[in-house]
Formats: sequence, C-alpha cells, structure tokens
Amino acid sequence: MQVDEKRFEELHFEELNDLVENKKFSVLRQEIQKYPVQDIADFIDELDEKQALIVFRLLPKEIAADAFAYLSVEKQTEIINLVNEEELSRILDDLYFDDKIDFIEEMPAYLVKRILKNTNEMERRLINQFLKYPDSSAGSLMTIEYVDLKKELLVRDALDYVRRTAPDKETIYTCYVIDKARHLEGTLSLKDLVLASEDKKIADIMQKDVLFAYTHDDQEDVANLFKKYDLLALPVVDNEQRLVGIITIDDIIDVIEEEATEDILKMAAVRPTEEEYIQAGTFKLARKRIIWLMVLMISATFTGYIIRGFSATLESVVILAAYIPMLMDTGGNAGAQASTLVIRSIVLGEVTFKDTFKVIWKELRVSILVGATLALFNFFRILILDSVGIDVALTVAITLMLTVILAKLLGGMLPIIAKKLKLDPAIMASPLITTIVDAFSLIIYFYLATLIINIPNLAG
Amino acid sequence: MQVDEKRFEELHFEELNDLVENKKFSVLRQEIQKYPVQDIADFIDELDEKQALIVFRLLPKEIAADAFAYLSVEKQTEIINLVNEEELSRILDDLYFDDKIDFIEEMPAYLVKRILKNTNEMERRLINQFLKYPDSSAGSLMTIEYVDLKKELLVRDALDYVRRTAPDKETIYTCYVIDKARHLEGTLSLKDLVLASEDKKIADIMQKDVLFAYTHDDQEDVANLFKKYDLLALPVVDNEQRLVGIITIDDIIDVIEEEATEDILKMAAVRPTEEEYIQAGTFKLARKRIIWLMVLMISATFTGYIIRGFSATLESVVILAAYIPMLMDTGGNAGAQASTLVIRSIVLGEVTFKDTFKVIWKELRVSILVGATLALFNFFRILILDSVGIDVALTVAITLMLTVILAKLLGGMLPIIAKKLKLDPAIMASPLITTIVDAFSLIIYFYLATLIINIPNLAG
Repeated sequence: MQVDEKRFEELHFEELNDLVENKKFSVLRQEIQKYPVQDIADFIDELDEKQALIVFRLLPKEIAADAFAYLSVEKQTEIINLVNEEELSRILDDLYFDDKIDFIEEMPAYLVKRILKNTNEMERRLINQFLKYPDSSAGSLMTIEYVDLKKELLVRDALDYVRRTAPDKETIYTCYVIDKARHLEGTLSLKDLVLASEDKKIADIMQKDVLFAYTHDDQEDVANLFKKYDLLALPVVDNEQRLVGIITIDDIIDVIEEEATEDILKMAAVRPTEEEYIQAGTFKLARKRIIWLMVLMISATFTGYIIRGFSATLESVVILAAYIPMLMDTGGNAGAQASTLVIRSIVLGEVTFKDTFKVIWKELRVSILVGATLALFNFFRILILDSVGIDVALTVAITLMLTVILAKLLGGMLPIIAKKLKLDPAIMASPLITTIVDAFSLIIYFYLATLIINIPNLAG
Repeated sequence: MQVDEKRFEELHFEELNDLVENKKFSVLRQEIQKYPVQDIADFIDELDEKQALIVFRLLPKEIAADAFAYLSVEKQTEIINLVNEEELSRILDDLYFDDKIDFIEEMPAYLVKRILKNTNEMERRLINQFLKYPDSSAGSLMTIEYVDLKKELLVRDALDYVRRTAPDKETIYTCYVIDKARHLEGTLSLKDLVLASEDKKIADIMQKDVLFAYTHDDQEDVANLFKKYDLLALPVVDNEQRLVGIITIDDIIDVIEEEATEDILKMAAVRPTEEEYIQAGTFKLARKRIIWLMVLMISATFTGYIIRGFSATLESVVILAAYIPMLMDTGGNAGAQASTLVIRSIVLGEVTFKDTFKVIWKELRVSILVGATLALFNFFRILILDSVGIDVALTVAITLMLTVILAKLLGGMLPIIAKKLKLDPAIMASPLITTIVDAFSLIIYFYLATLIINIPNLAG
C-alpha cells in the first residue's frame, strides 16, 4: 500500500461496493478485513443507513469498535439509533476510553442517556468525571488505558504483568510507575524494561524526573511539550499529583492541527468554530463573522471621513480618486505580509518581545527596498500610460512608498505589542492592519497632493 | 516538572548560570544532567562561545551528542569550529543518523568537508546518498536506526536480537520484517513480539499489509498518512521495494507545523522561506514579498480605471468617494473570511470538489444574512450621522449588501476551482479575492449611483 491513498481508495472501494450491491456478504466479510480500520470507516461513511448497518454488523468483533471510532458523527448516530441494547453495550465495551468520551460528547442528549444506561456504575462515574474537563484542557485529551507499575515490582514480574494486561491498553511503550497512593513516581519505557536484567526492581531502573501535565493545563501548552521533548505520551495528574490518565501523540497531532486552524481563522477575522465548515449551520457561521466585519466596517468609515475632509482637493483633481484603490490595496497587502510573518514567528516561539528592535530594523530595510521599487515602477507607469501630470504621478509614487514603509512597520510591531499586552497577536493580522494603514495612507496622499499639485480653486 | 516550561526555565537556569559564572564545574556537571537534553541545549544556546564549549565538554558522553542535535545552528557551528578532530569524530559517532544529516545540511561548506573527513568510507557514502534526497521528500526525513528482522527468525531469537541491538536504535517499537534481498515483507510491533509465544516464527505473526512510502514521496502526503492511520513510524522503500529507512512521528510533527506555516504565508501573499524570519536576510525577504505585491498592485490599477471611467459621476457627487474605503475594506474582509475557511477546509480534506454546490449554497445564505445586517446598519448610520440624502445612503447600503454577497460567493468558490485546476488553493486567499471584489464592488457602486441618485450635470 502506498502513500497515494486517493488512488488506493478509488481502486478497491469499487470492488467492496460491488460486493455490497450484490449482497455477497461472506466474501465482503473476508475482503473488508484486509483494510485498516480508518479505511473501513471511510467506506461505511459513504453507504446509506441500512447498508452501513449491515456492513458494520459483518465486521469481526476485534475491529468493529475501532472502525466505529473513526466513523463520522452522523454515521455513528445512525448506527446507534438502529442497534439494540445488547449490540450497543458490546460496542461501548470495546471502545477505547478516550474514543468513548469523544463519541459521547458528540451524541445528542437522548442517545447519551441510552449510552450511559448501558455502562456500569463505575464507568458511568468515570465518564461523567471526564465529560467535566473543559474543552482544550489536558484532561479532555486523556485516556485511561495505560500500564501502571507499582514501584516495588521486579522487572520479571513487571514484564509478566505487561504481557497479561497489554492487549487492553492503548500504548504500552511507556509504563507509569506509581506508589501505593497512585502518586506518579516515574516512567519506564518498554525498551528499558525489555533491556533490563530480570531481577532488578522497577524503582531502581525507572526514570525519575518525569514530565507531566495537570488536568487543567491548556492543550496548546501540552502540545508544545510534546514538540519540544519529542514525546510519544505524557502522564496527566490531578492537583494531588495522582496519576489520572495519559495523553498520546495521535491526539496531540489533532491539537496541533486544530491550533493552526484557529490561528488561520483568527487572522482572517473569523471566530473559530468547533465543527467542520461543511457541518456548521448558516446562523452560526454568520454570527462568527459579523462581529469583526462590523468592527472593521466602522473603523473603515473613519477613512471615509478623511476623504470627506479633503473633498475640496478631490473635487479639483478628481483623478486622485482613481489611485485610492491601488494605494489602499498595496498598503493592506504589504502590512499583511509583515504581520503574518511576525504572527507566525511569535506562535512558533521564534520571535519574542526582546526581538522588537530587530523586527523593526528588518522591516524598515525591507520596506524601503520594496516601497522604492514599487514607487519607481508606478511613477513611470502612471506618467506613460495614464497621461496625467508629473505632479500627480509624484504624489502617487511618494504616497505609495511611505504607505509600504508604514504598513510594514505597523505589521511588524503591532503583533509583538499585542503579545506583550497579553492579547492574541493574531488579531493584529491583515484586516485590522489594513484598516489602520488605509487611514494613514489617505492622509499622506491628500496632504502631499495639496503640497505638490498646483490645485486651481482650493479656496473655492 | 510541569507544563509551564517558561517558569521551569526561569527558575532553574539561573542556578546553572551561577555555577558557570563561579566556575563550579563539578557541581554543574552533576546538576545539568538532571535536565532533558532539549533544555541543556537551550541553556548552552544562551551562553557565549567559550562558556558554551566548556559546558558542552562537561556533558557525559551519553547525552553530549543528543544535546548537540538540539543546539541552534549558530552554536553548532561555533562548537565545531573550536573542537579538535578527535572530539569532532566522537560527536559525529554518537549522533543519530537523521540528526547527522540535518546537521550537515545546515553547516557551511568548509565545515562539511571537515565533517566528512571524520566519518568512515561506508558512512560517507550513505551520507552523500541521503543528502541527495530532495527537500520535502520522504527520503529527506528518514533515519536508518531501526530494527529489521529476517522473516525466518523465531520470536525467542528476535527478542534476543532486539535486546542486543536496541540501544543504538532510535525506535524499537515497530520492527520491520525483510526477506534476504531486504524487500519489505511486513512489520511487527514490539507489543506483539513481547506478547507472542516464544517458538513462533516472525513470518507467521507479522502484519503483512504494510503501509509504506517511497523515498520520492512528498512529505505532506507522508504526514497525511501518519494523521489518518495514527502511525508512530513508517517504513520507506526505494523503487525496488527494498527497505532503506524509516520516518518517525517526531519529524512528522515538524512537517505538519512547516506545512501550516507555508499555507499561512501563502495566504498572506508571501512566498515561504526555509529559514526562520529572524534569520532571513533583508534582500531575500524583500524578494519573497515584492512579486506578489507587484502583481496585486497592477491588478488594483484596473479598479482605478473603473473610478476614472465614472469620474463624471464622481465629480458631481464627490461624497461618493468617502464611502469607497468602507466598501472596499468590507468586501475584502468578507471575501477573506469565506476564502480562508474554505481553503483551510480543503487542506484538511473536509471540502472537495463535489462539495462546490454545498459551499455556494452555504455562502449565499450566510452572505445574505451578513450583508443585509451590515447594509441596514449602514443605511441608518449614514442617514443619521453623515447628513447625506436618502439616495446616497440607499446607494451605499445596496452596494454593501451586493458586495458582501459577491465577496463570499467568490471567496467560497475560487479556492475550490483553483484546487480543481491543480493550483494551490491558498493563492485564492484574501489579497487576490480583495482585488477582484474591489473592482466588481466599484462597478456596482457607480452603476447604482447613476440609477438611484439624481445627478445634476452628468452630461456636462
């Protein structure tokens, strides 16, 4: 099987589809097992309600729950609605605990009730506890399927214990060493356990300086720990330092992606949603967009007042209006380039407050270079193609140059200042920078115009 | 140690610094070993050249190379320049192979020569082969430290082999099963190996349907495989299906972050660079920005021609110019919101070409809702605050509504069309959408003005 998954799916899903259409279920049962559970889920997602249930029921017990965890929320809901209580509790039993929590969080209330009825008292209590961890907290990412070792164990017995209990655990590559009160004492990689001589004590070979997170830690901080220390898993403790769960790298990859999406949306003045775009409702999408549009629209009206203030100038040299879009757009784009680079560098930890002057100095040089090039090009383009006076061309060119410099300086500085003020630097992205630069750019433009252009009836 | 790494570093690095200042090197040697290698590297990065070398030489052999791999390129260069040949070859010997390749790629040419002189003939050949894999290919991400098992081995002997060879391997959690000609035959997780009965044959317990990548596969496709199948490592084969290396999850996390950065920069019309912002040169930064600025500036001049075309209208009702910035900015922002959401959804695989009509329908409804609200708000604001006629207020309000609808439809559709045409959807981000929407918005504006406003001397 190859990286080009698209091709893979197109080639083989057709065969599976034929088997479904022709009701060759025993062949299908054989064939479908050859696929990874993620692909099985993709396949079932594309089927209609009845076919989906038939194919799901064909899956061997070992993979049914795994495949279920990868189904879309819609398909999960459909299947849960159709199965009887016995099937439901079998699915629930086989789901990994963190998948179970994710699944319950997405289900409508009437199904959550039915689901909780089908779990035993102890698990129900645990589920309720996990559902209480706030979104984006370390607690909400945890799983409880990990191997814990009492620190008094011998390597021999520990290996035996791992062998016996491992099939139920999500990861056994790191074991977590605890004392009698479940306080986290250390970790032991399976590698070290396998390599250790059999009669040593766990406490003597464990890693004592352990990285961990508290349940209330923010998921972005947790992700940063994984990135910095190349972790595969991280133990999570409660306020009394008792081990309550672990976070595994696959969930962290989702967090990294989620955080990048959040940044990207914020930079486009959209407030992020939890759902995928295609599933979000119209009113919700509208609400997430309108507030920033309104704020930016109102600030843009100030730019309008500047134009009104110079309406005498504009009335005498109406051609000036023709260059407003070009000046505004270029200023906005130049500012967006600088602010985006700096915002991303702040997020990745490459730029901090102490770099402020480095950033200003860099943006100043870059903007003079870029601004001068664009201004020169424009001066001659306007003069040659637009048949306007040299005074108008000069006004536009100088304004363009100053606009680019201003845009890049503001774009470079404002995100750093926002960060220093404990604001999210992403708000200082393109839309806000554009609005600010627009206003300054137009003031420069009309002021230069009154200086350079011989305006006939300014007083009139 | 806790998630809040900032606090951690500030608290303890001071102590280490004191030890360096007071030349208490034997205490320092003891203390520094308690830190993860990543923190040791951070600490050394902050020291000056001489102190850095002293502290680096204090590090025990087992962690020196690991810490070295995490140093900044500047500090690596400084240290390599100061050490003698013997030390150099010791560092090189202890580096993991993929770290060695990364390191050599960053070094200046004269140091690369010295480094290659200090590696043996066989490794030199291997290094040269790895340096040839193109950037962003699977080959460039590979490491050669993995456990390969011949398929005829018994579990007992395999476990023994893993125990003996594992200390040199980067990951032993997945073993790769090969035949005599090194063709990839299957994989075996350490978990399954540990859990298997000892007299079974590897070939009988291995996983046969193996996901793999070719050396020439793109790193983004490889990252998508890791994400979809929750992989920790992926084998890489050459064109003859022979196993040549593996890619581990820690390098994939860097790829995911790199690709997100690339997307973000492209969406702000900056061509991505390899280096960090703070290290990139002025001319390079200017070059990466000026091309798009130029393209966008030239397209914005067309908007200028539209204004020129309506200069008679503008001359009679000069107040119209005052609302141009607000209309342009709001149109640009509304388009940016839609295009950013859709571009990100395309990247994450949530939206594909078959969703085109769903996207159009969604954006249409959202834009009518958003556009109508903004238009209504503006109509009354203008009428009450700006003391203009109802005709001007109506023109502005209707234009605003139509602009928002147009912007959101274009912002939603163009990225999907770009993707279909095999272009990068990210080029259809804010800057280009803004320019396109601006032009249409102004045409609507002036056309509506001539329709609605009783313009006194249009013919004049």
